[in-house]
Amino acid sequence: MREADIDPTGAASTEGDRRKPVVILRCAPHPAGRIFTDAALTALHERFTVVDLEGDDSPHALDQALPEAFAIVGQPDLPRERLARAPRLRALLNVEGNFYPNVDYEACYERGVYVLGCGPAYAQAVAEHSLGLALDLARGISREDRAFRNGRERYVADGNSDAILLRHADVGLVGFGNLGRALRTVLTGFAPTIRVYDPWLPPSVLRQHDVIPATLEEVLARSTFLFVLATVTDESRNLLNAERLASVPPGARLVVVSRAPVVDYDALLAGIAEGRFLAGVDVWPDEPVPAGHPARKLEGIVLSAHRAGGIPAAFFEVGEMVLDDLTLLARGLPPVRMQVAARELVGRYRNRPVS
Amino acid sequence: MREADIDPTGAASTEGDRRKPVVILRCAPHPAGRIFTDAALTALHERFTVVDLEGDDSPHALDQALPEAFAIVGQPDLPRERLARAPRLRALLNVEGNFYPNVDYEACYERGVYVLGCGPAYAQAVAEHSLGLALDLARGISREDRAFRNGRERYVADGNSDAILLRHADVGLVGFGNLGRALRTVLTGFAPTIRVYDPWLPPSVLRQHDVIPATLEEVLARSTFLFVLATVTDESRNLLNAERLASVPPGARLVVVSRAPVVDYDALLAGIAEGRFLAGVDVWPDEPVPAGHPARKLEGIVLSAHRAGGIPAAFFEVGEMVLDDLTLLARGLPPVRMQVAARELVGRYRNRPVS
Amino acid sequence: MREADIDPTGAASTEGDRRKPVVILRCAPHPAGRIFTDAALTALHERFTVVDLEGDDSPHALDQALPEAFAIVGQPDLPRERLARAPRLRALLNVEGNFYPNVDYEACYERGVYVLGCGPAYAQAVAEHSLGLALDLARGISREDRAFRNGRERYVADGNSDAILLRHADVGLVGFGNLGRALRTVLTGFAPTIRVYDPWLPPSVLRQHDVIPATLEEVLARSTFLFVLATVTDESRNLLNAERLASVPPGARLVVVSRAPVVDYDALLAGIAEGRFLAGVDVWPDEPVPAGHPARKLEGIVLSAHRAGGIPAAFFEVGEMVLDDLTLLARGLPPVRMQVAARELVGRYRNRPVS
Amino acid sequence: MREADIDPTGAASTEGDRRKPVVILRCAPHPAGRIFTDAALTALHERFTVVDLEGDDSPHALDQALPEAFAIVGQPDLPRERLARAPRLRALLNVEGNFYPNVDYEACYERGVYVLGCGPAYAQAVAEHSLGLALDLARGISREDRAFRNGRERYVADGNSDAILLRHADVGLVGFGNLGRALRTVLTGFAPTIRVYDPWLPPSVLRQHDVIPATLEEVLARSTFLFVLATVTDESRNLLNAERLASVPPGARLVVVSRAPVVDYDALLAGIAEGRFLAGVDVWPDEPVPAGHPARKLEGIVLSAHRAGGIPAAFFEVGEMVLDDLTLLARGLPPVRMQVAARELVGRYRNRPVS
Repeated sequence: MREADIDPTGAASTEGDRRKPVVILRCAPHPAGRIFTDAALTALHERFTVVDLEGDDSPHALDQALPEAFAIVGQPDLPRERLARAPRLRALLNVEGNFYPNVDYEACYERGVYVLGCGPAYAQAVAEHSLGLALDLARGISREDRAFRNGRERYVADGNSDAILLRHADVGLVGFGNLGRALRTVLTGFAPTIRVYDPWLPPSVLRQHDVIPATLEEVLARSTFLFVLATVTDESRNLLNAERLASVPPGARLVVVSRAPVVDYDALLAGIAEGRFLAGVDVWPDEPVPAGHPARKLEGIVLSAHRAGGIPAAFFEVGEMVLDDLTLLARGLPPVRMQVAARELVGRYRNRPVS
Repeated sequence: MREADIDPTGAASTEGDRRKPVVILRCAPHPAGRIFTDAALTALHERFTVVDLEGDDSPHALDQALPEAFAIVGQPDLPRERLARAPRLRALLNVEGNFYPNVDYEACYERGVYVLGCGPAYAQAVAEHSLGLALDLARGISREDRAFRNGRERYVADGNSDAILLRHADVGLVGFGNLGRALRTVLTGFAPTIRVYDPWLPPSVLRQHDVIPATLEEVLARSTFLFVLATVTDESRNLLNAERLASVPPGARLVVVSRAPVVDYDALLAGIAEGRFLAGVDVWPDEPVPAGHPARKLEGIVLSAHRAGGIPAAFFEVGEMVLDDLTLLARGLPPVRMQVAARELVGRYRNRPVS
Repeated sequence: MREADIDPTGAASTEGDRRKPVVILRCAPHPAGRIFTDAALTALHERFTVVDLEGDDSPHALDQALPEAFAIVGQPDLPRERLARAPRLRALLNVEGNFYPNVDYEACYERGVYVLGCGPAYAQAVAEHSLGLALDLARGISREDRAFRNGRERYVADGNSDAILLRHADVGLVGFGNLGRALRTVLTGFAPTIRVYDPWLPPSVLRQHDVIPATLEEVLARSTFLFVLATVTDESRNLLNAERLASVPPGARLVVVSRAPVVDYDALLAGIAEGRFLAGVDVWPDEPVPAGHPARKLEGIVLSAHRAGGIPAAFFEVGEMVLDDLTLLARGLPPVRMQVAARELVGRYRNRPVS
Repeated sequence: MREADIDPTGAASTEGDRRKPVVILRCAPHPAGRIFTDAALTALHERFTVVDLEGDDSPHALDQALPEAFAIVGQPDLPRERLARAPRLRALLNVEGNFYPNVDYEACYERGVYVLGCGPAYAQAVAEHSLGLALDLARGISREDRAFRNGRERYVADGNSDAILLRHADVGLVGFGNLGRALRTVLTGFAPTIRVYDPWLPPSVLRQHDVIPATLEEVLARSTFLFVLATVTDESRNLLNAERLASVPPGARLVVVSRAPVVDYDALLAGIAEGRFLAGVDVWPDEPVPAGHPARKLEGIVLSAHRAGGIPAAFFEVGEMVLDDLTLLARGLPPVRMQVAARELVGRYRNRPVS
């Protein structure tokens, strides 16, 4: 296989077909049809020799395909010794959103195999859902919709006593990765004052994005709208504990969309129940949430069932990113759409599977 | 009274007090405390001799104040002959949001009395509520919150089959006055394609705002998100009739926040019931909506009880606008915050009172 | 003439022609072809009965047209008694950019005749020229171009010792009318801190435009880039006098594009000569500037000959605005493109003719 | 040396000092004082054991420091065997802007040593200079400044016959790396239509930045403003040849700021001389440009001596980036400010030294 010969136009001859790079497709937990549109799947087959393991998830099938593999889409078990059987491997394209320890990432980095994540594909969906939750909390949209259905709607100013504007408001972001940046962009037209806490970034990076670097304490104490966007690491676990949640201004609106372990849920729900703040919550310590969970009865909450990121447009963007980057790699160019996983961080994430 | 002598700093002496312009305050249906913060009311009293008619709504009290009146805040009955009794009158500041025919506006224009409206004060609140409704419809926020409360929540992708993004979406606006412009601004970060129909504006004005001038037919047929922002006139009544609503793309999200008479509600609710589109509806042909109204049971709707504009921040902005413009007028400068009502239009609005 | 019958589509019959509103065209100092494109002029003739006085500037010709005149484009001598001869007059459309006292504006306001200005047509051109001057001053573009032509160019860092960035810089605007707003928009991508002094506007208006209200002293003392955009009135004459110019930070870049009388030119040129600041200057106390004027030899200045606003696109926008607003007025709608001149201000401008 | 023990606050004890990571500083061609502010240099010394080779550029001095080196700032000769002597090396921080073949980059990638570039530091400066050149070309700023100095200035419209607006203009970018993205941002307020040609990027990436993906032919044929921002590779050499330059619309404004070999300068200068287009040119095939070079006499050009990027703020940003990323690396975090050089591309650049 000579990668330099790839014909990215897909107009390859039969002989050319034999020279197309081999891509192993094993997208679980996604069915391939969830992340690839028909057009993307067609293009993928035109440009690559696709070994589709969706029908055969066995280690044997994978092992057979490894010697010629140019790239693997998905994250099958890949200990060091198995990676050694794939001398032509150039990239591992994670389409699930979390990096699990069933892959020997160090072995990848040592060999210069790209470890690519699909996080950016979900960022826009999460940002829009987060803003939707924030505006719901700002205006009582779902609360008043419920009241209306129960014949208890309140007209004009009567139901608006706690309604507030997002324009020019104090907004806090805990975490400024893909989610924070996408959210920052959709907030543009509101011209808010945005304070950001992100311990992995120097202040200069935040200033470049026209947000104000701040300590966690400042972000909590000064935000009318607070977005929790941090990933889970050993450091961020329980970051928003009872004491810190107590420092949020009265009447604040909290949006929790990243990972549940970052927040003390007992304290969160207590604060909502006491009317100290309102919250939109998309992630939960246990999913599914137990049937009798008290959150189901709270007025000051908008309940969301881990729905922020997983929408059709986001899934198809994963597939488009995979196709785009495989095409670039086959042309001898670096990937530009998926996120190159940092060697320092890939082992530190403690996210549970989205299941 | 010599207006040129006004001391806008409020540091007027007792003698100075006698020379302060007279402002008649009759803010009904608002209590003054709804639109003026304490600070604004204090400043108003410092800068002007305020004749407060909140306690005495009688024609007699008004008549007594007219001869010295510099401005009237509110819209009491002002036929031509009564206006004639106010030779010093410079401005009529409407704080209610609608212009009723109990004022002889022509008599105002003939004399160069400013007729000022407070519509811009509500625009930001309406824009944010509209976007909140649109994002709710895009992502099923209130629908899935209800399901969650009923123990029927669906996790991750399961409840997202009809979820869509606003980013880069086709957005249509029917009407491009204060509401449309405020909405256009908050949409900035989504980089949508925005088509606008507004028969009162030449295409050049729309292009200046970086939106695409379009016919009503184009706006309806090409918008994934459709915002109805038109005011009511004889021409716009029933503008979105059954036939036109039928031309909206399947799965479109409609947001109706301006005035109910612009839309055929039977057709609107039928379209929702049939699943042809989803809608967020803030205004209703009859308010309060009858107890057994079928809209209360529809799944594909977000119900809102005329709550888009009337929030505390908007009311206080009305008061701030009044104070700012009265201060400018007393300094011999033109008003810049309230909207100078167009002579051609003030009699054409057919909005019902907000009550 | 019945205005209600106007056919704005231009498809009028011969009989219809007799009913088209009469528009008097007297665009001096512009030839009509400078402000109207062929297409605009054709549309104007289709929609209106045009009395073109370009060829006959006599009072007699004007007087003959007045009795049927619906609108006058230009500003011929219009004392009260002559206006009285135009009972159907609805609008006076100034296409020159300054309001001269040869018109009895009070008589217009008393009758409800619109007095319309074309200032907004020039704002974008002035804003872009101003930014061009500012970037030239920031980077020494014209200075180093001159050096290059003289064989004394300095490469890479050698000519850049005083080069600065506009991004995140402190920017000050003196005046926030049409020019300031257009400039604010083109500055968006630089995310500067913008302080504005405008005594005619309450701070709330400035905050709405996401700029910081400030005193003149603050604006001068804290701006790395300072834009002088104020119009001339008795109050603003000599606003930037020697003392105030002395408070500008060392190395500041000044852009003077509105009106010369606002600035003390002796002090301005002295400050440039002494290297205290750099300046881009588009307006001059005497135009043309005398042949031996010392400014012609200064290094720290970019010389511009009143060129900021008068570009073809701006002139044609004047014509488009005239056409758009006449068309709206003939349909019984208010003008939306030209600027309704404020009764309080029309007599206060002290701008000299642009000639 | 235990990196995990690093104290990024700089409050290290004497004992701690011995454990600080070793950073080799060899910033040539920059003196260290050009890229590090005093504060940055102080912080660098507090956080790291700095081996400063500015005074001793010998291979011997470098060799002595390699065994303990955590990072190298600069690009000394680093063949594979020398890299092998630096077992603790984590990063090579290029502060010059170009990658030369005196480093065995493959050896770095194989070992997981970060190869970091400082290109982003210059992007804002280049973008602002590019926009400055474009506005100069749009409005004849330097041309008319020259005329003014020669007593031949033309007032108001007389010198503006070829003046055009950038707002809503057709803009083309050839190349969309750091420069293109920074330029896209500063263009925001002009709301242009931006077409981009970049063969290394899939169209999806361009759409994400709200620009229109296009072929080179489209970009050339449809751009009123054309920015040449491409780096030099074997593929891009002579990309804008005579034939392609002939396809640019009459009167277009070209800004050439990236690398001279991308453009056929004979054809470029001929087009300017013939008045087919105007150009701002910052890079030259031979620098310094020969004394009698005909470009020095052309009217339709703005001459710039490779000054777009190398301004004090950009140099200091290089130093800040170095400090920020070294600090992150020492904390066990990935770098976020410098650009991780792509293994596929680092050997393909053909840029000459800026020197």
